[in-house]
Amino acid sequence: MKIAITGVTGSIGTQTLEVLEFLKNKGFDFEIVGVSAGSNDKKLIEIIKKWNPKYAAIEKKELSEKIENTNVFSGNGATLKMLKNSKPDFTIVATGGAAGIRHTLKAIEVSKRIGLANKESIVCGGNMLLNYAKEHNTEIIPVDSEHSALFQLKNGDDIPYKLIITASGGALRDVPLEELENVTVEDVLNHPVWSMGKRITIDSATMVNKGLEVIEAYYLFGIKNIDVVINRNSHIHSIIAYKDGVMKFHYGIPDMKIPIAYSITYPKRIFEYKLPDITLEPVKFEKVDYNRYPALKLAFEILGNQKLQITFNAADEIAVKLFLERKIKYTDIYKIVKNSVDYFEKQNIVLNDFEDIINLDREVRIYAEKIFS
Amino acid sequence: MKIAITGVTGSIGTQTLEVLEFLKNKGFDFEIVGVSAGSNDKKLIEIIKKWNPKYAAIEKKELSEKIENTNVFSGNGATLKMLKNSKPDFTIVATGGAAGIRHTLKAIEVSKRIGLANKESIVCGGNMLLNYAKEHNTEIIPVDSEHSALFQLKNGDDIPYKLIITASGGALRDVPLEELENVTVEDVLNHPVWSMGKRITIDSATMVNKGLEVIEAYYLFGIKNIDVVINRNSHIHSIIAYKDGVMKFHYGIPDMKIPIAYSITYPKRIFEYKLPDITLEPVKFEKVDYNRYPALKLAFEILGNQKLQITFNAADEIAVKLFLERKIKYTDIYKIVKNSVDYFEKQNIVLNDFEDIINLDREVRIYAEKIFS
Repeated sequence: MKIAITGVTGSIGTQTLEVLEFLKNKGFDFEIVGVSAGSNDKKLIEIIKKWNPKYAAIEKKELSEKIENTNVFSGNGATLKMLKNSKPDFTIVATGGAAGIRHTLKAIEVSKRIGLANKESIVCGGNMLLNYAKEHNTEIIPVDSEHSALFQLKNGDDIPYKLIITASGGALRDVPLEELENVTVEDVLNHPVWSMGKRITIDSATMVNKGLEVIEAYYLFGIKNIDVVINRNSHIHSIIAYKDGVMKFHYGIPDMKIPIAYSITYPKRIFEYKLPDITLEPVKFEKVDYNRYPALKLAFEILGNQKLQITFNAADEIAVKLFLERKIKYTDIYKIVKNSVDYFEKQNIVLNDFEDIINLDREVRIYAEKIFS
Repeated sequence: MKIAITGVTGSIGTQTLEVLEFLKNKGFDFEIVGVSAGSNDKKLIEIIKKWNPKYAAIEKKELSEKIENTNVFSGNGATLKMLKNSKPDFTIVATGGAAGIRHTLKAIEVSKRIGLANKESIVCGGNMLLNYAKEHNTEIIPVDSEHSALFQLKNGDDIPYKLIITASGGALRDVPLEELENVTVEDVLNHPVWSMGKRITIDSATMVNKGLEVIEAYYLFGIKNIDVVINRNSHIHSIIAYKDGVMKFHYGIPDMKIPIAYSITYPKRIFEYKLPDITLEPVKFEKVDYNRYPALKLAFEILGNQKLQITFNAADEIAVKLFLERKIKYTDIYKIVKNSVDYFEKQNIVLNDFEDIINLDREVRIYAEKIFS
């Protein structure tokens, strides 16, 4: 199997390489034909030297070193060139943010199957993206732990009645509501369970992340009856419920390598991981307090409205950036998202193609940036 | 779909009729073509009058009433005649005990699919029975809640690494070990979770039942790596584990109507049942204390040995009968089973066909009956 990885220097990209290292030792037959990164040239060089892909790409820099046997594209659009030339059977799209949408589209064009770790592709692309994959006969396997869990639980059974997505509750789950206004960047980045990138850790505290996951699950599985419950230790990754009262839980140690490996070797499971001792800790669920997580409530309100989903995501990306730059308070993140959604709800915008999506995304960013300035 | 039900007056039989009543109101298209009972003629007459099957059977009595439009067979072998004549597409074999083996064999011959609630068929028949089903191209859908759960979890995924069967722990789970010798029949029949027949309630306290389920799971799913954990409220019905660390839990309110309905409408789910609120109670598992449940340990030791599986089951059936007759103590149940297994381990017995199985079953009963007399 020829494999390409976009966003290879990020958290998912790095863990994908760890998984591939393991699978290689298990005799899994593959070749990394292409990798791409945003700006982490040092790490990209290391990866290229180790894995010798035929093609590589870096978007926001030039590589400082010339590498033999690897064709390196650089600059805006480099990833698309890498994908086109490397012709992978399987592409892991681990590019972060709305920039990943273009990568997903190209990966759909050139691969038979994609492992989708980029949430924005489906949140913003909605049915347009799913139809694009259908036209190209390309399978989408979700990589996100929650969606991988739903995918794994759903196979081989009747249509689910309800999807239940679990949430850890994020870094601020026990901070009194009235203190949320004054939490620092450091408070938020201290996530209790998952080790992830910065934006996703903050989105986990606000549950914007969970909102994006609800939207993604809606499109991926075609079911609007979705609920979110808190499972503090993230051992349950998702639940599927049937109308006959049966529920299936997906349980395991929270480690992204497991769903990454599943997306690569599906329908087989070749990766190996320690089985948890289920007698050690009870499995507990709590209801979500929507006063603490108003962004999740908002996500449910806009579910299925592509324009507002794009707005929700783009405004949050800006808000998180501003918070990380210490320009706004933690509680302002939601205010920016809500303000943007309210504003764009009134705008008459028609989305005919992917360019329209990217244009709206840009427009929202400009708008959101100005709200607190 | 033409449906036949053996053991229709028992606990599973009665609940099957309740399920069918529900499915009828949902527009599920079926006809009950045959029913059979052991000795409960009053209840059988009621059922015949309500459902008007073309054929009926009663094994140990004559019906006191003549019923128009239903051909009633009676006496030993009546169920086999009912099955042969009614030609069901689907048969629920809910006959209790080793007597059910003959019913299962006949059901395999005449039906396209059977819902198997009779544990002894597989425990005693082993691969002989599975091969018989294969030869007749008859699908076996397990009805037992644990095996139905495993069946539901397993579909659509890779080969499991391990099966974990849950146990409530039975009525005596909190009785101090040294007091077990003196518990009464009433103490044991007071099961904390499931409402079942008498033998199965006692087998639940000794975990002989769980041992039979482990044996059954081994044959049904072809996996020897099996574990048992205690889940006191029986909300988790079974677990499947994969070598990549993923576990799937089957969760729901303990009600046999759910797996019964699943076996009837598989692969669809048409039955409806209240979805449990998972935030109300944590899910807890405990390790099994084999000092409390030595019969379960014994079941693992004889796993795959058909001769000793038949012995284990038959000796227990006798021991439970003697305990219900107040002729032996609760702790003597295990003693009879263990003594019988040890004795028959040394006997040179070859099992070539189903008659050999039935003969051994009879021989064990005679032996077990004498141990404490």
